[in-house]
Amino acid sequence: MQTTFRVQTRGPGLYEFTREVAHWLPEGDGLLTLLIRHTSASLLIQENADPDVQSDLRAYFDRLVPPSSDPAMAYLRHTMEGPDDMPAHIKAAVMPVSLSIPVQNGALRLGTWQGIYVFEHRARPHLREIAAHLHHD
Amino acid sequence: MQTTFRVQTRGPGLYEFTREVAHWLPEGDGLLTLLIRHTSASLLIQENADPDVQSDLRAYFDRLVPPSSDPAMAYLRHTMEGPDDMPAHIKAAVMPVSLSIPVQNGALRLGTWQGIYVFEHRARPHLREIAAHLHHD
Amino acid sequence: MQTTFRVQTRGPGLYEFTREVAHWLPEGDGLLTLLIRHTSASLLIQENADPDVQSDLRAYFDRLVPPSSDPAMAYLRHTMEGPDDMPAHIKAAVMPVSLSIPVQNGALRLGTWQGIYVFEHRARPHLREIAAHLHHD
Repeated sequence: MQTTFRVQTRGPGLYEFTREVAHWLPEGDGLLTLLIRHTSASLLIQENADPDVQSDLRAYFDRLVPPSSDPAMAYLRHTMEGPDDMPAHIKAAVMPVSLSIPVQNGALRLGTWQGIYVFEHRARPHLREIAAHLHHD
Repeated sequence: MQTTFRVQTRGPGLYEFTREVAHWLPEGDGLLTLLIRHTSASLLIQENADPDVQSDLRAYFDRLVPPSSDPAMAYLRHTMEGPDDMPAHIKAAVMPVSLSIPVQNGALRLGTWQGIYVFEHRARPHLREIAAHLHHD
Repeated sequence: MQTTFRVQTRGPGLYEFTREVAHWLPEGDGLLTLLIRHTSASLLIQENADPDVQSDLRAYFDRLVPPSSDPAMAYLRHTMEGPDDMPAHIKAAVMPVSLSIPVQNGALRLGTWQGIYVFEHRARPHLREIAAHLHHD
């Protein structure tokens, strides 16, 4: 059983779509797999309680991978698509592109504080596609 | 077929549980998936020969993501749960939350030097839960 | 259904093997899982259009994790196997060891610009093994 989730982004940051995923799951046990079909955004499982966690994550990764217009990044060559493009590819190498989550009685076996997010790395809005596969036991 | 592995941690560092996983596997072929049900610890497949690799990994990531009490991290806002909390969430974004390992004749298809670890990022002891799913071919 | 892909590397950098994987897939729907059986190389899904993306990725990670001969890395202890060995383990913790990709009508559900790569972190040539598992729906 497969589907595609679509998440509309409006600039860099985390966008939760746990509810859409949970709603799609049928009864029974199995394994859910998600794959983001892009090289400038990531999939994360992260804390869904304090929104500061999400803005801190963005602040940290913007410092870890500065824009290619930053003098410290002058060695980068893939700069034609904007100063946020190559950093987006780097962030997409550091953070997950696919996630697998066991399912029991139709529910994701996530921890209490875990939510599923798209982490958008580009400045402009994007409609991000996530390929989803559910294996029924 | 599903279970939950539990790993007791006593401070930051790597805790191997390859043997517990291998022991749980029945005969036959399939696919094992593990998901750590926390946002301040990670799952790693890493070298299991020289223990220096494990302490070097911890030393590196402690420098990559300093405690929020470090002046370099003054921009972080999620600091109420202690100076090791937000860095733990960041490390949990950088390192894997889920792993999938093919199984053949009841054995994990890991390389010779690969072991499965919980990487604990918090200072205080925790009982970490790993959701496990085995698909039989 | 399982197999092993082998990728010969000749120094650090990205080596694409999307075509070999696609060629192996039978008709029908399912889920492909890949696991690299090494702790000093990674699996990446990355941009396959501009080769500068691949050299920029290598340049970035070489700066993020300098060789253990670099004074900034003097705290590392696992140095006997060469200055590129412990950095390779660190990079293998940061980037994926396993990937899962939904399959539809015998085709990988990758995005337009996504290719599958081995990211070699060691200086010397290696024959890298990737364990592959296909679940048929």
